[in-house]
Amino acid sequence: MASMAAAFIKPSNAFPHSPITFVKTTSPWIQLPISLRIKNNARRRIRVSCGLIDPDGGKLVDLIVDESMRAFKNREALSLPRVKLSRIDLQWVHVLSEGWASPLSGFMRESEFLQTLHFNSLRLHDGSVVNMSVPIVLAIDDAVKTRIGASSKVALFGSDDRPVAILNDIEIYKQPKEERIARTWGTTAPGLPYVDEAIKNAGNWLIGGDLEVIEPIKYHDGLDSFRLSPAQLRNEFISRNADAVFAFQLRNPVHNGHALLMTDTRRRLLDMGYTNPILLLNPLGGYTKADDVPLHWRIKQHQKVLEDGVLDPETTVVSIFPSPMHYAGPTEVQWHAKARINAGANFYIVGRDPAGMGHPTEKRDLYDPDHGKKVLSMAPGLERLNILPFKVAAYDKTQGKMAFFDPSRPQDFLFISGTKMRTLARNKENPPDGFMCPGGWSVLVEYYESLVPANNGRIPKPEAVAA
Amino acid sequence: MASMAAAFIKPSNAFPHSPITFVKTTSPWIQLPISLRIKNNARRRIRVSCGLIDPDGGKLVDLIVDESMRAFKNREALSLPRVKLSRIDLQWVHVLSEGWASPLSGFMRESEFLQTLHFNSLRLHDGSVVNMSVPIVLAIDDAVKTRIGASSKVALFGSDDRPVAILNDIEIYKQPKEERIARTWGTTAPGLPYVDEAIKNAGNWLIGGDLEVIEPIKYHDGLDSFRLSPAQLRNEFISRNADAVFAFQLRNPVHNGHALLMTDTRRRLLDMGYTNPILLLNPLGGYTKADDVPLHWRIKQHQKVLEDGVLDPETTVVSIFPSPMHYAGPTEVQWHAKARINAGANFYIVGRDPAGMGHPTEKRDLYDPDHGKKVLSMAPGLERLNILPFKVAAYDKTQGKMAFFDPSRPQDFLFISGTKMRTLARNKENPPDGFMCPGGWSVLVEYYESLVPANNGRIPKPEAVAA
Repeated sequence: MASMAAAFIKPSNAFPHSPITFVKTTSPWIQLPISLRIKNNARRRIRVSCGLIDPDGGKLVDLIVDESMRAFKNREALSLPRVKLSRIDLQWVHVLSEGWASPLSGFMRESEFLQTLHFNSLRLHDGSVVNMSVPIVLAIDDAVKTRIGASSKVALFGSDDRPVAILNDIEIYKQPKEERIARTWGTTAPGLPYVDEAIKNAGNWLIGGDLEVIEPIKYHDGLDSFRLSPAQLRNEFISRNADAVFAFQLRNPVHNGHALLMTDTRRRLLDMGYTNPILLLNPLGGYTKADDVPLHWRIKQHQKVLEDGVLDPETTVVSIFPSPMHYAGPTEVQWHAKARINAGANFYIVGRDPAGMGHPTEKRDLYDPDHGKKVLSMAPGLERLNILPFKVAAYDKTQGKMAFFDPSRPQDFLFISGTKMRTLARNKENPPDGFMCPGGWSVLVEYYESLVPANNGRIPKPEAVAA
Repeated sequence: MASMAAAFIKPSNAFPHSPITFVKTTSPWIQLPISLRIKNNARRRIRVSCGLIDPDGGKLVDLIVDESMRAFKNREALSLPRVKLSRIDLQWVHVLSEGWASPLSGFMRESEFLQTLHFNSLRLHDGSVVNMSVPIVLAIDDAVKTRIGASSKVALFGSDDRPVAILNDIEIYKQPKEERIARTWGTTAPGLPYVDEAIKNAGNWLIGGDLEVIEPIKYHDGLDSFRLSPAQLRNEFISRNADAVFAFQLRNPVHNGHALLMTDTRRRLLDMGYTNPILLLNPLGGYTKADDVPLHWRIKQHQKVLEDGVLDPETTVVSIFPSPMHYAGPTEVQWHAKARINAGANFYIVGRDPAGMGHPTEKRDLYDPDHGKKVLSMAPGLERLNILPFKVAAYDKTQGKMAFFDPSRPQDFLFISGTKMRTLARNKENPPDGFMCPGGWSVLVEYYESLVPANNGRIPKPEAVAA
């Protein structure tokens, strides 16, 4: 557990929600906007500096009220018209409160919503552009709208009927559900998980405004200590003297192919002249679809992977990204990347079909598996982020381990898809030696075992998933 | 007819397809990015200059080969794999050939297509951004793709089996039809006119590349002389010493409400300090849906409106915009505006629900009628264009004429929708005096009369349409 503790940073190591001054240097990070340049420069030593990448909009947003104001804001909230938050709404409050979506200061008003839908980006007052590809919006129904009346503020309440936040200077506008879905997912086919969960039955209005969050969002699920805010992550990177931060987004168990990729990325960054590249392994912690492995099992699995020494705790920070999952492919991968800029990452690893899934009604991928990285490399507002395309790793039968696929000898490689991996674990079969560390695999098997009683024998059917 | 001739500029007045040097001044056009500023500045006299707005990308694209090369390119085309152009494909070749879509140099390759779908804009090599909201793409099917094989060029052939253009350095990529439709229209409902006409039955591949168009596109429909290219329009504006050009896009007959708006816009521009604002009345000439009034009837109607003195020929240029119509609302209005920048316009009048239509399967507008102008005012790459929101005109019963709606006395106004107008004309009823000049109205009545024999009594059912 020692190595795990070194990698899983506890918030006590940082300064939660205090204003942070970031080290600014006159020589900014070396910017390598496309993968080609990285390839070209891979063997050249280049000058690097020790400041972290600036958050979008220049300043990390922190929407949590000062502790001295909590009681006052709590009382104020009790006097205001109420909006009840769903589980996913609360996850977005969390995301917004810590500045993952900087410079957003609350749920989107209509002008932000329209820019997100049409341009995947927001133009700021100074004319600069930041990326923003998924709508972060709060839906209300007719009855709530009527109850709000002419009030300029509302209180957001959690499922425990306690006030979570105040939304100020509100703007209420129509939710064009069909258009939102079509423009975000590129389809309106029935069966999109986030749509079914959070849009279909939500109200026909959206309410935007500036958030004041009464206290840091906690889930009391035993994992809160693994939920570092962007400010805490930045502090951690600074305290480790990171001169490059490379982020790896995932919502699946870590296998040795992932580990190989992360280790190899660090090697490439060292080759480029960085002296201390730090990995931000940032599993998504918000809503995921029923057949994904739940967060606490994934974290348990990630811990085993660290314990087994597959990843180096000295150069790895594992922390939970609180966003819910859209499964919106090329649109969503931009959000995943942009949020990590705010957390201090200036390199982002992107795989095949990021945030993709099978088409809900047709037998094909919903997105072209190559579109994610292409769209990411062209996305407005992400020019500062270095995109590192995922190399394909597969099980090399000649070496008995995961290795980068060598197209000159395809017969030697075995591709183990997410679906295959889940099926094996469900059936308590073992994958080939070297696919995943034994400790990590046993967590997966344990998870699928736990399902049988819980679901009366109905095990969520695995779907093809990307890394 | 004298006044009409003055307004309908014949190409012989200009220099078709010759390289054009635009007057550049050190003091550029005064830029008033949003309507509010115009309001604030309305009574202040501001300095204006006499250069036209730069085309997107700095240089107006001209893809028509030099006359001396035509025979050579024609022979080359005959030797290449062939792609047969549909009527709409040919309209896009026309649009591209004259630089309406500058800086596009041909049908989109995948990177342009993806940027259009996701960002409604293209990032150029110098890092600048131009607007591009609708995909300008050419579809081919499996058989054609096979026939093209490894060729790096193809010839585009018209319906008369004569070569129209060569497409160079081609790139063939998958057409994700559902995603293209969802992201462009914000719906995938069946019954979108452009989708039914140009996408549903088209091939599953798109072919992009650089166009060389063998000779200027002509339709031989008696209207070619009214189709001025952006270069010809720019020459015309320069020869008239225009110091502001305001564009009005329409695909409907002109009524006195439109005329009032155009006249009032000129007055506002004069108030702002411009001395010679010229109106570009630029009816859309490409594909329109079955129940829209066909182009030649609309042009006939526009001619009558000019003959009747409703618009001043001295300050009006009427010319056909060759683009096909998408009916894609807020997405398409950006294209309509962007193309007019390339034609020299620095002011763009935008109405309620631009490029909108009724939802094909639900009883509602497909788009929020206010989204068009909102999206236009925020669109990347259109910052240089001054957006002039449409004031609402209606029939003022107290004055017996079209006037700007006065919300303090709503009972005095009669709203005559496109649907209502068409129904009246079809039934040979007259609208209230002052709604449209009598000459213009008689053209409309004549059009609907002409339909009865042609369609065996089946008259296209009018739909609610925007101006």
